[in-house]
Amino acid sequence: MKDLINLIDKKLDEYLQIVYPEDIFKAMKYTLMLPGKRLRPVMCLETARILGCDINKVLPCACALEMLHVQSLIHDDLPCMDNDDFRRGKPSNHKVFGEANAVLAGDALLTFAPQLIIEKSTELSAEQIIRLIHEYTKFAGAYGLIAGQVVDIESEGGKLVKSPEETLDFIHLNKTAVLFRLAVRFGVICANGDTKTFNEFDEFATKFGLAFQIYDDIMDEISSFEELGKSIGKDEASDKLTYVSLYGLEEAKNKFKTLIEECYSIIEKYPSEIFKNILDKLRNRILGE
Amino acid sequence: MKDLINLIDKKLDEYLQIVYPEDIFKAMKYTLMLPGKRLRPVMCLETARILGCDINKVLPCACALEMLHVQSLIHDDLPCMDNDDFRRGKPSNHKVFGEANAVLAGDALLTFAPQLIIEKSTELSAEQIIRLIHEYTKFAGAYGLIAGQVVDIESEGGKLVKSPEETLDFIHLNKTAVLFRLAVRFGVICANGDTKTFNEFDEFATKFGLAFQIYDDIMDEISSFEELGKSIGKDEASDKLTYVSLYGLEEAKNKFKTLIEECYSIIEKYPSEIFKNILDKLRNRILGE
Repeated sequence: MKDLINLIDKKLDEYLQIVYPEDIFKAMKYTLMLPGKRLRPVMCLETARILGCDINKVLPCACALEMLHVQSLIHDDLPCMDNDDFRRGKPSNHKVFGEANAVLAGDALLTFAPQLIIEKSTELSAEQIIRLIHEYTKFAGAYGLIAGQVVDIESEGGKLVKSPEETLDFIHLNKTAVLFRLAVRFGVICANGDTKTFNEFDEFATKFGLAFQIYDDIMDEISSFEELGKSIGKDEASDKLTYVSLYGLEEAKNKFKTLIEECYSIIEKYPSEIFKNILDKLRNRILGE
Repeated sequence: MKDLINLIDKKLDEYLQIVYPEDIFKAMKYTLMLPGKRLRPVMCLETARILGCDINKVLPCACALEMLHVQSLIHDDLPCMDNDDFRRGKPSNHKVFGEANAVLAGDALLTFAPQLIIEKSTELSAEQIIRLIHEYTKFAGAYGLIAGQVVDIESEGGKLVKSPEETLDFIHLNKTAVLFRLAVRFGVICANGDTKTFNEFDEFATKFGLAFQIYDDIMDEISSFEELGKSIGKDEASDKLTYVSLYGLEEAKNKFKTLIEECYSIIEKYPSEIFKNILDKLRNRILGE
């Protein structure tokens, strides 16, 4: 796991060179290079590996995924959105580079990610590259990540078009699960996996994404700034729609337990220490050893 | 020209359907569907047509181009950037939908444009589609449009890394010319034009883009809000680096004249009433009939 994270960090640093005009590349790189768990690229690489694919073929996709994730964090932190001053324990992008550069750094990461896939995936076929970019555009835009963010903001303002339960599921499927789904889809596509494998990993990632979001909601309730590296208790303060606020802490834990157990049972047939470790870590933090 | 504009408007409306969550699609569509000259998509379609390509093959690319253009307008108008309250004679996006939705609508257009190219360009080869998306990502991001915007903002704040002349050229090449270059590149790629044709149209679009920006700088000086549909006199008020502020009105007109004449001489061998009309309109407005 640590080796994979180091490899991803090295590649992110290598792929994104600072050229003129330096300020925009520095802003892009600032949030991108903050130490993180790199969960999405790790899951992308691990999916490809257990399907028999050389992970070197998948590195541009894995890094593109982290760029998309970081793009969404930079824009989410903006004063006009969640207005968060901290990210990964450091001042958020707009606090360091100003709002204009933070908006533009996000835009630039959003277009650099597919550029990277095209330029560096030299061992993939044209058909694979088109599939990868197509998945990327679907999940990054108004049919994915952005839909989740819009409904999240609206629900905070008390505007619900659907029921609270449906709204919450929609937000978490689109805001959180999409990036994990994109991660495993990238892995399966690079490994030329069949449709059955594709759907199986997609189901895993969907359930994992929801479990991860419930984990995040619970942690916001019970954890500290030091542990998370971002503002906590904000959900409650802003009357945000979360699993904890909607179902209560115990019921949220039960939902988490069900989902995480389904994840174990889907992935158990693959020899993956890494997936097992990721699931163990989340489970133990919420449910105890 | 009018027929082409109507066709583009019809396709833009058709390609971008409003689905849940409606607010984001409405925000995307609001600025996109404001009546405009559709200069970039028109030039894209006309390039393909004079190279013998059926324009129906090129419509998704032409519309993607307009989406990218509109994305850059929505983000440029934000309070943290140019802080413009009007666009195409109507309240700008964030004035109608709020800042958060305006940021997200821009993000969504930025990813929807390549999605559209992939999903709707069914008559193009995989190699053509990859080339189109690659050009898109290069020109839309930190190596193109965004680089221009960043240097533009910095120059307004008095921060110049290069000389004023070099800085101004960099801004206008990247902020303005890139979209015209992308337009003709899309056209040539769809028409399967050879390298010589590609370079010729690229040179045309570069010169046209610079001429267009000088035209815009001059119009900001001599025109009215009613004529332009956006705030005017802002350049002078903000001490902005423009051709007029740097070289004076007469020298700006001379530069414009030289560039527009070069455009005529590159394009004259092609039988294009539309390119001739576009050049005539700009020339007559600045230099008289």
